Amino acid sequence: MAEQAKYDVLGIGNAIVDVIAPVQDAFLTEQSITKASMTLIDEDRASSLYAALPSASETSGGSAANTIAGIAGLGARTAYFGKVANDELGKTFIHDLRATGAGFDVTPLANGPGTARCLIAVTPDAQRSMSTYLGASSLFGMNDLDEDVIRAAAITYMEGYLFDRDEAKAAFVHAAEIAAAAGRKTALTLSDLFCVDRHRQSFLHLVRGHIDILFANEAELLALYETDDFDRALAHVRKDCGFAAVTRSEKGSVLISGDETVLVKAEPIDQVVDTTGAGDLYASGVLYGLSRNLSLAECGRLGSIAAAEIISHYGARAQTNLRILCGLDAHS
Amino acid sequence: MAEQAKYDVLGIGNAIVDVIAPVQDAFLTEQSITKASMTLIDEDRASSLYAALPSASETSGGSAANTIAGIAGLGARTAYFGKVANDELGKTFIHDLRATGAGFDVTPLANGPGTARCLIAVTPDAQRSMSTYLGASSLFGMNDLDEDVIRAAAITYMEGYLFDRDEAKAAFVHAAEIAAAAGRKTALTLSDLFCVDRHRQSFLHLVRGHIDILFANEAELLALYETDDFDRALAHVRKDCGFAAVTRSEKGSVLISGDETVLVKAEPIDQVVDTTGAGDLYASGVLYGLSRNLSLAECGRLGSIAAAEIISHYGARAQTNLRILCGLDAHS
Repeated sequence: MAEQAKYDVLGIGNAIVDVIAPVQDAFLTEQSITKASMTLIDEDRASSLYAALPSASETSGGSAANTIAGIAGLGARTAYFGKVANDELGKTFIHDLRATGAGFDVTPLANGPGTARCLIAVTPDAQRSMSTYLGASSLFGMNDLDEDVIRAAAITYMEGYLFDRDEAKAAFVHAAEIAAAAGRKTALTLSDLFCVDRHRQSFLHLVRGHIDILFANEAELLALYETDDFDRALAHVRKDCGFAAVTRSEKGSVLISGDETVLVKAEPIDQVVDTTGAGDLYASGVLYGLSRNLSLAECGRLGSIAAAEIISHYGARAQTNLRILCGLDAHS
Repeated sequence: MAEQAKYDVLGIGNAIVDVIAPVQDAFLTEQSITKASMTLIDEDRASSLYAALPSASETSGGSAANTIAGIAGLGARTAYFGKVANDELGKTFIHDLRATGAGFDVTPLANGPGTARCLIAVTPDAQRSMSTYLGASSLFGMNDLDEDVIRAAAITYMEGYLFDRDEAKAAFVHAAEIAAAAGRKTALTLSDLFCVDRHRQSFLHLVRGHIDILFANEAELLALYETDDFDRALAHVRKDCGFAAVTRSEKGSVLISGDETVLVKAEPIDQVVDTTGAGDLYASGVLYGLSRNLSLAECGRLGSIAAAEIISHYGARAQTNLRILCGLDAHS
């Protein structure tokens, strides 16, 4: 039996600052950007794309970091591992994460590439198309894992994007092993359809052997199991993990735990502005619910509300008090 | 008779990046911040206040720069003078301004303080309380004025905030003289109630001798003329300047030109999120209208629409296409 956990959720991911700009669809064509997806770019491309981008705003991002910020905003105890550089963007990232109450102690990179940035082009249909320069975040590795923190976290949550770098992937698997050995839970988000395609075998290996809680959207789950039958994909994941939460955009989400299955409606939204972070914040709500032993339906409801908040404005960090929004007691 | 102008509007102001965070009113009390106003702070205070601030987003700001970005977004030809440092925030500021189409060629400061930042605490009532570290922007001076650009601009628009530094104030007055000598118009915004109190005599001198177009909100105009009678204040400004546009929050605005007076209603707004930049974008609409010789009523209408856009989200730069929003032809 594991000791009382010091953290409800530890997140591990690429520490990224988002640079968000509204664009027309023609911009994506001109810049050969794959719509609604995440593409890795190098520093030169980041410079030229930024020069072409309209007036932007900068907000801390990073998939797992967004999720951790959301969980902290809901009132749970969180920590985060990710690598920033010792530069202005890195300071911004650290400030924004610590300001949520999350623990963050990874040593910034002193020499080398700058803090990661994700250039996010948001089209009028609220879809976000992401071009990511990983910079310092890609140098996250084994040495950045604080094993005591992993052992002290009830759930260690990791983003699939980490699989794009071998060093990060090794650290990722190692973290999952430490967590399991300490009797803790591990969670994974599949992150992106193309990311699943790039790393399907590794993901399947991990999901079957190391992951207790899986997050994915419908397309990612279908891609993982190479099927176009949603029920079949659900049956697979039910066998492979004990718990999964699968988002289906405006159709809501499906949560499964053991034999139980719950369908959760999407929250109504007045104005869908920018879908960046919708999946990340959905995971915040579900993981918060799990940390409080709430029902599957309640986990899904919290996820839907948090996702709806993020979708209603630019940026992937909440702009309103999530506890109040979710009807949770604001003082506990 | 002046030559055909190359620029419709040239803006001169403090080049600032905004750091915007939603807070509760208690935060203002704890941090001794004067609500709904602008306070100048030093670098140490900027650091300690930033550390206390919740998770934030960064957007280019600066009152006159916001106005210029808005005018460019409406489709007019603009330029801007303001001083940034040769750092990341400076690059962000330059990118965001040039991306609107505005000309910006002031040499960044190579050594010395960093780019100015304005820490903006936004309370649930959508009021913004600003703490500004002027940094490099305060070193804007006479040498940064490109006299050819001033002579080539139909209107030179300046923000009252510049009066907080003697060097900037001298440059400001000099720019107004160059513009007048070239047969161009000059415009001024009073910027802030406390700014008017600090510099009333200088402002009165400028308004009476050098300014053709005055922007103010009701409180600033009353403070300038030390009266609590709005009609009396309007009579003063009608005598001192040929043209004035005075905003009155949800009551709309009053525009006067010679003997003419027009009342303009505020635009209805679904959700007032953050009033940062409302006055700046109102000025964008009016100055755009003036550049196109539109009626007083139409100038005011464009100002109200642009202000309503800015108020509906965090940040003082437009997130939607202002030409489409204002019903202007999007292709000219």
